[in-house]
Amino acid sequence: MKELFGSPGKLSGFALRIGQFSFAAASIGVMVSAPDFFDSTAFCYLIASMGLQILWSFGLACLDLHALKSKKSLYNPVLVSLFVVGDWVTSILSLAAASSSAGVTVLYSKDLNYCNFPPHLPCLRYQSSVALAFVSWFFLAVSSLVMFWLLGTV
Amino acid sequence: MKELFGSPGKLSGFALRIGQFSFAAASIGVMVSAPDFFDSTAFCYLIASMGLQILWSFGLACLDLHALKSKKSLYNPVLVSLFVVGDWVTSILSLAAASSSAGVTVLYSKDLNYCNFPPHLPCLRYQSSVALAFVSWFFLAVSSLVMFWLLGTV
Repeated sequence: MKELFGSPGKLSGFALRIGQFSFAAASIGVMVSAPDFFDSTAFCYLIASMGLQILWSFGLACLDLHALKSKKSLYNPVLVSLFVVGDWVTSILSLAAASSSAGVTVLYSKDLNYCNFPPHLPCLRYQSSVALAFVSWFFLAVSSLVMFWLLGTV
Repeated sequence: MKELFGSPGKLSGFALRIGQFSFAAASIGVMVSAPDFFDSTAFCYLIASMGLQILWSFGLACLDLHALKSKKSLYNPVLVSLFVVGDWVTSILSLAAASSSAGVTVLYSKDLNYCNFPPHLPCLRYQSSVALAFVSWFFLAVSSLVMFWLLGTV
């Protein structure tokens, strides 16, 4: 059994989970603070998807912490399969949500120029929220790849 | 060496590549036939990304066909690593492009209602193009997963 960076029950895995849910929470916080975000379906989807990611990553962070404290191993084929499916589903949903929001943000700020002219949308907040969502997705993508790799070696 | 569905140099792998580039080409065709598509950066990005996917998948389809005809094996660690990197990069770019275009299409058709009221955008064509891009991405995602799995067994 290889020990990879970001494996479940390791400090690196726990740090990745912390990164995932904190950036996802920051993304939701910034988006919710922007007025009129609910006018766009993509932004609402971003909030829903980041919410799901917080639940998933927070749950796995708790599991990692428990494994670290009790020095138990999480290398179990059934458990790793569950992590793989969960990580892949949330990471695809997160990338889709971040990209669709990025598409809408670029449309508002560049193509329609709704930021400098009326209705003066708060594009900087939209952009920050999307950037945070991409960072959160990046951490989740690292976890997903490590889990999938582990599944082949369990 | 396991033989998986969609492995390089197999008929199933060749069929997946054909599916990838034909749906990507159809997506570009439908998008280009829609007037004013170039007003949105997301749609231009979709065309660029699907173009890259056509090049990549067509190249690999030719390689698969050559391997099928000459009965040569493509199971070589260097070659499979190259396939993995290429497949993953193109599949992440394709999903991002399809999602950002989907975000813009939903904004136009549902949130801003630009399809039934002026400027009467051709939303049906945008939607069809995005749907074709998602189908193309799905085939590419299957190839990417198979390649990544193969890399662990080569």
